[in-house]
This record gives sequence, C-alpha cells and structure tokens, in this order.
Amino acid sequence: MNAVDRLVAIEDIKQLKARYFRMIDSKNWPGLEALFAADASFDISDDVPGCAITGVSEILRVIVPSLASAVSVHHGHCPEIEITCGTMANGVWAMEDVLRWAEGSDSPIKSLHGYGHYFETYRRINGQWRIQSLRLKRLRVDIEPWHPNSGR
Amino acid sequence: MNAVDRLVAIEDIKQLKARYFRMIDSKNWPGLEALFAADASFDISDDVPGCAITGVSEILRVIVPSLASAVSVHHGHCPEIEITCGTMANGVWAMEDVLRWAEGSDSPIKSLHGYGHYFETYRRINGQWRIQSLRLKRLRVDIEPWHPNSGR
Amino acid sequence: MNAVDRLVAIEDIKQLKARYFRMIDSKNWPGLEALFAADASFDISDDVPGCAITGVSEILRVIVPSLASAVSVHHGHCPEIEITCGTMANGVWAMEDVLRWAEGSDSPIKSLHGYGHYFETYRRINGQWRIQSLRLKRLRVDIEPWHPNSGR
Repeated sequence: MNAVDRLVAIEDIKQLKARYFRMIDSKNWPGLEALFAADASFDISDDVPGCAITGVSEILRVIVPSLASAVSVHHGHCPEIEITCGTMANGVWAMEDVLRWAEGSDSPIKSLHGYGHYFETYRRINGQWRIQSLRLKRLRVDIEPWHPNSGR
Repeated sequence: MNAVDRLVAIEDIKQLKARYFRMIDSKNWPGLEALFAADASFDISDDVPGCAITGVSEILRVIVPSLASAVSVHHGHCPEIEITCGTMANGVWAMEDVLRWAEGSDSPIKSLHGYGHYFETYRRINGQWRIQSLRLKRLRVDIEPWHPNSGR
Repeated sequence: MNAVDRLVAIEDIKQLKARYFRMIDSKNWPGLEALFAADASFDISDDVPGCAITGVSEILRVIVPSLASAVSVHHGHCPEIEITCGTMANGVWAMEDVLRWAEGSDSPIKSLHGYGHYFETYRRINGQWRIQSLRLKRLRVDIEPWHPNSGR
C-alpha cells in the first residue's frame, strides 16, 4: 500500500469513528448500524462484566435501550490507526463519556462520567471501511446513583 | 480534486479550526478575526435564542465581550471534513466548552459547561481556507448562576 | 519536502503524541521513555514553578513518582503541526488532564483537573519522530486538597 492510499484509509477511518460518536449522541440508530460490519463484535465487559456482544443487530439491541433515555456525550481523542493491509486496520482511541438519565427512566443510575480507550479493528467492505470489533478498556468511571444513601 | 490535494485541504481546515479554539482561549482577537471570511456567519441560537450573526466584525462585536472576562476552554473533537470542490468544504466538529467568569464581571452567570456540535462551511480565499459559517447545536449545557437560590 | 511527505510526517507526529498520552495513562514508563529524544526537555514551570527538566532519564525521574500513584487521564486535542524541515517540526496541542490520587499516597493533593496547551518541538532520529521539547502552558487548574479546611 502506498503512502497516499494509507493516508486516505486513515482519514476515512477517523471519519468513520467520528460518525460513530455523533450517531450515538444524536440517537441516529440506523446511521449507527450502517457503520458496523454485519458480524461486528463489541466487548463492554469493563462496563458490564462478561458482556461481549456479537452481530450488529445484537449490538444495537443491547446498547440502544441504555442510551435512548440518556443525554449522552461521547468524545474520541488521539487516534492511533494502523493499516495492516488494504482491507484491514487496527485502531486505538482515547475516549470520554458523560451520560445523564432523565428522572423516571428505568436506568439504575443517574449519571456516569467515564474515561478509557477503545481498542478496535476495521474492515474494508465493498470499498467502505466498517467497524469490525471494539473493546472498551476503562481508566476510570464515576457513577452517581439516584439516591446516594440507599440501595437504589 | 486528487487524493493528495483533498488530504492537504482537510489538514489545513483542521489546523484552521484548531487556531479558532486557541485564539478564543488565549484572547487573541485579531488572530481570531483573521480566520473568518469577511461575510462569515455564526448561528448561536442554541445558546442565545434568535442569535445568528453575519459579518466578521459583527461576530467579534458579539462574542468578545462575553468571553473577554472569562477563563475559557474550548475543545474540538472528531472532525468530519468534506471537501465539496477546490474552494468549498463542509465540516462537523464535536465540541466541549468550559467557562468561568471572574467575580465582579458583568456576566449574568458564574460558569458554563457545555457540549455539542459545530456544523460549518469553509471557503478558500486567496489560497487560504477561512471559516464561512458556523452553527452550534447543543447536546447539553450546565449553567451555574452566581446565587443558586436567587434571581441573580 | 513534498505534500505527501509532509502529510506522512504530520500523521506520524500525531500518533507519537497519542502514544505519549496513552503510555502515561497506562503507566507504561519504558514505552513513554522511547518517545523522547535522549536530550529532550520538559518545561512544567506552570505547574511546578521553576521546573524545566532536561534529559529523558531526568524527565522520567521527575514525572513518574507524581503519576505512578494516580489514576490519570490526559487528552490531547486539535494539533497544529508544522514541519519545518525533513527532520524538525513544531506543534501545539490543546490538552486536559484529570488526576486522582489514592488515599495513603504521598501526593500533597487529592485531585487535579487542568486545561492548557503544549508547545512542542519534534526531531526525526534514525527515521523516527521523537519529542525534543515540551512546554505546558496552563489556562486553568482546579485542585482539590485532601482536607479542604486545613494546611494539608
């Protein structure tokens, strides 16, 4: 792969991940789904122990309900994108997320403020880069319960 | 437009917006003014209802007084830059701003912490990319008044 | 230097700084050390008055103890990278850092939340870009002491 093709691929993958964050925070679920490979996987076991999800439909089925009732902000920083061949790539992104749920939602918590890194792979399918896998590794998560001094 | 020219334009526009944030936070108003097209427009109606400003002098006249007495931090994330022709481009930026005003300033609020997206256009003028228009769409704004339990 | 070589150098330096942040926050000190020129300098006099450190061993000796007992998050934004020749470059990064020390650590403070800019230079050594110098200039720092109403 020559230098220009590599730079184009890196820029394309940066914009792919930018749309990932923006589709989540603007609750554009069809737009989000279109960014993944059909057999994509998402490992959120750092947030929900044991939770690694496979298949884009299943990813949406799991993450949409928890996010739909939240005002969410997801930011990505300092991508390290490595193109491994013309159709495969790896990436690491620093991340921060700030979520607040509305009163009356069925969320078990009131708010979450987290930091960490995404470790990802990408695949080029029919000329478009897609997210093949994500794993979120946390540095820190601050959670505010609904009632500080009670079980809920 | 070939791939290299497109990548050069994207990098130039990223650095244009980087200077925008840095000129604001370092209160370099002539440096900020130089980044805009003369007939630029700025739509901040999400922050100040009805407020869409046209002309770079007018933009400076409106935003400088509100920022001059604040310690401000503006960060931009995950740009999605699309070059539409050799002299025109669109962009979306995730953003976060953290502002704190000094005691005794005439700001109606003590602090603001906001999140959102800039939707922008750029124009290449005499070989230099300039900001042609901005619209700030908020996801969330947290405001702290001077006196939590009073009118001011 | 042609346009492609310049873009490759800019992307390499962005990834160099991305690793800098990630090595610090994952406490990978050998990985951090490898990112600097041997005679690198780090000016943190905005955080520790008078403190400008020279030499990569000395940089590690100073910053590792203060960070090793902290959960730290360092994010970099909006790089302005200028390649001055084939082996030299300048850069400015907006930054935010969020640090929290464990109870019982010997840190004089409980937490720090800061914002500012890094002003940096880079040098290409044996084909690899390295950090030659950093200077951190603060916009704002919020510090929480261990005991709000006491000397410590």
